[in-house]
Amino acid sequence: MVETLRWVGDPDGGRLWLIDQTRLPTEMVEIEIGTVEEAWEAIKSLRIRGAPAIGIAAAYGSVLGMQPFGNADRDDWLAHFRKTTDYLAGSRPTAVNLFWALDRQRARVDALVVDDADPQELQQALLEEAEKIHAEDRQMCRAIGRWGADLLKHQTGVLTHCNAGGLATADYGTALAVIFAAAEEGKCLSVYADETRPLLQGARLTAWELQQRDIDVTVICDSMAAQVMREGKIQAVVTGADRIASNGDVANKIGTYQVALVAAAHKIPFYVAAPSSTFDLSLADGSEIPIEQRDAREITHGFGRQTTPDGMKVYNPAFDVTPAHLVTAIICEHGVIDPVDTAQVEKMLTAH
Amino acid sequence: MVETLRWVGDPDGGRLWLIDQTRLPTEMVEIEIGTVEEAWEAIKSLRIRGAPAIGIAAAYGSVLGMQPFGNADRDDWLAHFRKTTDYLAGSRPTAVNLFWALDRQRARVDALVVDDADPQELQQALLEEAEKIHAEDRQMCRAIGRWGADLLKHQTGVLTHCNAGGLATADYGTALAVIFAAAEEGKCLSVYADETRPLLQGARLTAWELQQRDIDVTVICDSMAAQVMREGKIQAVVTGADRIASNGDVANKIGTYQVALVAAAHKIPFYVAAPSSTFDLSLADGSEIPIEQRDAREITHGFGRQTTPDGMKVYNPAFDVTPAHLVTAIICEHGVIDPVDTAQVEKMLTAH
Repeated sequence: MVETLRWVGDPDGGRLWLIDQTRLPTEMVEIEIGTVEEAWEAIKSLRIRGAPAIGIAAAYGSVLGMQPFGNADRDDWLAHFRKTTDYLAGSRPTAVNLFWALDRQRARVDALVVDDADPQELQQALLEEAEKIHAEDRQMCRAIGRWGADLLKHQTGVLTHCNAGGLATADYGTALAVIFAAAEEGKCLSVYADETRPLLQGARLTAWELQQRDIDVTVICDSMAAQVMREGKIQAVVTGADRIASNGDVANKIGTYQVALVAAAHKIPFYVAAPSSTFDLSLADGSEIPIEQRDAREITHGFGRQTTPDGMKVYNPAFDVTPAHLVTAIICEHGVIDPVDTAQVEKMLTAH
Repeated sequence: MVETLRWVGDPDGGRLWLIDQTRLPTEMVEIEIGTVEEAWEAIKSLRIRGAPAIGIAAAYGSVLGMQPFGNADRDDWLAHFRKTTDYLAGSRPTAVNLFWALDRQRARVDALVVDDADPQELQQALLEEAEKIHAEDRQMCRAIGRWGADLLKHQTGVLTHCNAGGLATADYGTALAVIFAAAEEGKCLSVYADETRPLLQGARLTAWELQQRDIDVTVICDSMAAQVMREGKIQAVVTGADRIASNGDVANKIGTYQVALVAAAHKIPFYVAAPSSTFDLSLADGSEIPIEQRDAREITHGFGRQTTPDGMKVYNPAFDVTPAHLVTAIICEHGVIDPVDTAQVEKMLTAH
C-alpha cells in the first residue's frame, strides 16, 4: 500500500516522499521532496491536499528546510528556522492544520532551546515531532475506523460523497476509514462513490483509494444517488465533515445535504465521520457557518472544455450544511455520538 | 429568435435550416440541409435531437429526398419515395416520432395516389404535411405553455432538470414552454438549471435557450438543488418526461427523481410538462418502464478527459422513475392533471 506521504532517512539527509495527487487517477506517481522549496510547491499546487495531510507535509518540510544548517551556530540556526516556518506557512494561507503543525514545531524548538540544545539535537527533535504528528493522525483515523466499522454490516452497500479518505490524511481517512476498517474485519461491502461535481474528488480520489485497497467500488453521478437507493443498493451513507457546530449540524462538501435528504426518504442511516478537531463549539448551530462561494469556472469549464454558454451565471457554493436531525450518528476518534444533539456532542467532547 | 429548424422555399427547391446542436453552447450555427443524405446525417449525429424535433426533421427530409424526382413518372416517383422514407427511418432506430412522422408522409401520399395525383402534387403535399406536423408540434408546446404558466407566480424561482426546451421540439419546448409562457405574460422568473450530468443538457442547452430569450438563468451542479431550495430560491420545479405510466409515474432523465424528493422535503411543488403522446397507457405503473443503461464513458470521460481511474466500474442509468405521489401536477396540451392518479390521467386523456 503506497502511503499518502512518508519520510525516508535520518534527520540530516532524509527525504519526504508523497503521492502527487494532481496526477491521480490516471497516474500514480510518488515524488521525492528534498528541499523546503519543493515542499512549499507541493502544498501550494495541491500535489498534497486535505487539512491533516498538509499539516504533516509542512512539519516534514521544516525538517528539510533546516538540513543545510547542521553546522550553523545556534543563533543562526534559530534565525533560519523562523524564516523556514514562516515560508512554509505562506503556502496555503487558509489551511488551519498547516499553522497548527508549524506551531508545534516551534514550540518543540522553544522548549529545547531553554535546555541549551544544539542544532544537531534540534534537527533530531524536528523530525521526531513531525513523525509524532504523522502518527497521531494515523491513530485518529484508525480509531474512527474502529468505532465506525461496527455500524456497517456484512454485505451492505455504502454510499459516500467527495473524498474523506487516506489521501486527505496520513493514510486511512475519516469516512473511508470506516469502510477500510469494516473491510479489514472481513465485511464484504459494495461502495458507491458520488463523482462529486464540480471538482470530482469522488471520481478521481475516492474511487482510486477504494480500487487500491481492492474494495468493490462503483462511480455514479451525483444525480443518481436516489435511484441507487431506490433500487435497494445502499444500506448506509458515510461522509466526512469540514466543520461541525455544537448542535451537530454538519458543514461538508456541497451535495452532502442532498444525499442526507434522499437517504432519509429511503430510511437509510446517514453517518458522518470526523475527528473531534472538526467540531467548532463556538457555533450554536450550522446557520453560523459561512458558505464559501467558489470560482464559476469550476462549473463552466470543468475539465478542459467549456460546457455552458459564454457569460453564463452560475452558483457555486463549496459547502452545504446538513441539519443534525438528518444525521443518524457522528463517528469521532473517541466514539459514536448518537443521537446527534447539543447534549450528546458536549458529553462526548468534554469526556476526552 | 432563431428556430430549432425551419423550411425556406418551395417544395421543389426549398431547403431545411437547423441549429447544429452539437456546437452549442459555444457556437450558434445554423446549417443548410439540401439533400436527404444531409438530413439523415444531421439526425444520426445529433445535430438535431429530441423526439418531436427529429420527427419534424425527418418529414422535411422526405421532401428534400424527392426533389430530384419532380420529372419522374409516377411509378418511379413512388419507388423512390419508399426508398427515401426507409432510408430516413434508419437514422435513429429508436426514435418513435421519427417513424410516426414518416408514416404520416406515407399515408398522405397513399391517399393522394388513389386520387391520381401526379409527382408535382405529391411533392407539394409532402411539404404541406411536414409543415402541418411542424405546426401541430408548435401548437402543442404553446398549449402546454399556456396551461402551465398559470401555475407559476410573478417573481418566483423555478428549477428545471435536463432540457425539455425548444431545441427538442419545434420551437418552444414542454417544461421550458411553461417558463417561456409565464415570462411572456410578464412574470419575472429566476430559473435555476441543473447542469444534468452526464451529458450536461442543462448546462449546454437549457442555459442557452433561456439566455437566448433573456430569461434570468443560473446554472448549478446537480448536487446543489437541495441547497438552492433551502436558501429559499426555488418556489416551483418543472421538468419534462420521456414516458408516463397510467397511474402518473414519470420516467425522465436520471436525477429527476432526486429533484422530486428534495422538492417534497422543502414543500415545493413539482410539475411535469409533457404532451399527451408521452403517456403509455399500456403500463399500469412506472415499475414496468425499463431503465436504459448507457455507455460508461459518459461518466468516465465526460469532459474531454478521463476523470476516473482506469478500469473503474460505473453505473449509468439514463432515466429514473418519479412516483406519482411526488408529482404535484402534470401539464399536457389538454390541461392540468391534478391530483396525479390513474383516474385523473384517464379522465384527461379520454376527454380529448
